[in-house]
Amino acid sequence: VKTFFTPGPSQLYPGIDTFFADALKEHVMSMSHRSGAFSDMFDRTVANLRTLMDIPSDYHIFFLGSATEAMERIIQNTVESRSHHFVNGAFAKRFFTTAQELRKQATETRSSWGDAAKGSDMHVPKGTELAVFTHNETSTGAALHMEDIYAFKRANPEVLVAVDVVSSAPIVKLDFSYLDCVFFSVQKAFGLPAGVGVLIVSPAALAKAQYLEGKTTTGSHHSFASLVTSAVKSQTPATPNVLGMYLLGRVAADMNDKGIDQLRERITGRAARLYELLETHAVLRPFVKDPEYRSDTVIVAQTQDSTLLARKLANEGLMVGKGYGDYKTAHLRIANFPATSGEHVDQLMTALQQCA
Amino acid sequence: VKTFFTPGPSQLYPGIDTFFADALKEHVMSMSHRSGAFSDMFDRTVANLRTLMDIPSDYHIFFLGSATEAMERIIQNTVESRSHHFVNGAFAKRFFTTAQELRKQATETRSSWGDAAKGSDMHVPKGTELAVFTHNETSTGAALHMEDIYAFKRANPEVLVAVDVVSSAPIVKLDFSYLDCVFFSVQKAFGLPAGVGVLIVSPAALAKAQYLEGKTTTGSHHSFASLVTSAVKSQTPATPNVLGMYLLGRVAADMNDKGIDQLRERITGRAARLYELLETHAVLRPFVKDPEYRSDTVIVAQTQDSTLLARKLANEGLMVGKGYGDYKTAHLRIANFPATSGEHVDQLMTALQQCA
Repeated sequence: VKTFFTPGPSQLYPGIDTFFADALKEHVMSMSHRSGAFSDMFDRTVANLRTLMDIPSDYHIFFLGSATEAMERIIQNTVESRSHHFVNGAFAKRFFTTAQELRKQATETRSSWGDAAKGSDMHVPKGTELAVFTHNETSTGAALHMEDIYAFKRANPEVLVAVDVVSSAPIVKLDFSYLDCVFFSVQKAFGLPAGVGVLIVSPAALAKAQYLEGKTTTGSHHSFASLVTSAVKSQTPATPNVLGMYLLGRVAADMNDKGIDQLRERITGRAARLYELLETHAVLRPFVKDPEYRSDTVIVAQTQDSTLLARKLANEGLMVGKGYGDYKTAHLRIANFPATSGEHVDQLMTALQQCA
Repeated sequence: VKTFFTPGPSQLYPGIDTFFADALKEHVMSMSHRSGAFSDMFDRTVANLRTLMDIPSDYHIFFLGSATEAMERIIQNTVESRSHHFVNGAFAKRFFTTAQELRKQATETRSSWGDAAKGSDMHVPKGTELAVFTHNETSTGAALHMEDIYAFKRANPEVLVAVDVVSSAPIVKLDFSYLDCVFFSVQKAFGLPAGVGVLIVSPAALAKAQYLEGKTTTGSHHSFASLVTSAVKSQTPATPNVLGMYLLGRVAADMNDKGIDQLRERITGRAARLYELLETHAVLRPFVKDPEYRSDTVIVAQTQDSTLLARKLANEGLMVGKGYGDYKTAHLRIANFPATSGEHVDQLMTALQQCA
């Protein structure tokens, strides 16, 4: 038996085999994406997500191929020239690079990897159309404070705000009234097979896309205009990952049944225990030094040789992530997602304590 | 029990539940997309596809979110200004529209819906960089002759050739030496859950993308340059639909085991029987008048009221497609894909004969 604490793809949400069997029985994978049955499924998934994440009814929910695609579609549809990026890790940098590749005048405020932009750092150049924040940097385990982002929006109401919650949704509580583009992927805290990116868009972001339509290319089938035209009919512009959308709806429903508040408490409690272990460990240390900016869902430990440690844990069936990029052998990354049980985490903590 | 003759999503390939169970057992959905296990899976799927479709070793195989995304990536990466499109249905038109949305000077040769461009029609304006052919028009059931496309390429070696084989791969036999961009989606003749588009790219198309890199935007994570940088490492730029790629590899392997030539013969034979039935039917007629240009895999019947007929067939568990767009109530579309058995087709033919 293997238990996956990898930061995504990760442990599958319990019951996924039942959900798949139901999908087979209900012909989810054979039904036309232009049928009423598809639209019913679309509506259920959207409704379950709205409840789970408290998404306002005038915000649209789009289904894309990946979170990386979401970065591309956000830049194409909300930025004529200038985006500003708060960069403190590989995924924030990926968003910044996307803007450059799409030939925008992208600027950045850089923090060290393992640090996070604080409220006092959150300034953007004049003329910035979109400010981009990576709430939870999957490569380093640093998390921004949503309150700082809300304060930024209050101070800069004319700037659109995009937030990457790829590996923190739906655990992070969000106040969408301060946010314009929010996106995540399903193979992280939702515990699903990869292949769906979800992008949530405010009326203001949509209006900006409409403004840009006539001036520049906003893409083709996945422009906001095209996505919204389909979404209001409970459809998607192209044949989507229907199974992925169905499974997402099922997992969101299950989380709603169990209560998102309890789930959040459970994850936060586990994170505190894991960080405590790292603080007092013989060879491991939390990579993010400031406890105020540590992620609850992706916990990164610094060590001398993570390859050996990861192999030792794997021998016990405990699969953890190695470090990202240059940190490959210097970090362990531990996902603290809902799909793993308290017992799984206890097992991991015992095994970690025995590593010295 | 329902049997899906819908033109995609469609009947699932036999054994899909076993493949899914194997995927669970092998932790396909939890493994990191940066792991050796993923790269092994990537290599197996690519190798099986190369064998099945006889794809040259110097052609790259890219995995995207959908065939519609493939249209976008082809235009972005191979066209600076001018593409020419042979348009005879909704999907050929979608490709043409994509080029327009991406602000290219797209031109078209239009045939009536239900007709197909013949060799003598295959001319493009001077300066055309990319000629776009829809081999198998899923909306009408018309199929071009690949020999005509090869002759076009011989006469226009400097023009890149893109071919949409969305609903004909892997049944149509292709000579890739005449082709530069070939794409399909997996929910048609491969009988898989939707959510993967496969794009096969020639060295010449890749060179064109490299030439365009410096001049214009070729996209971001799914530019040809980004896709190929990952593909040579047996990876993808973003987290892909890992399950979809795995299932595609399994189905391709199964088709290779059974023999693609026999499979093609079986499908062609069934198509001939279905068209014969339509030719002599009391109320149904083949929509494509010229027998030379009828699709083997998507068979479209003209009738007075397809809604009633489709409902009658559905009562017997036989799910067929209605017409596309304006033809919704005037056509029945019948997929002749490998996932349905000879018995399924016999059952459908008996039921069709009883409709009068």
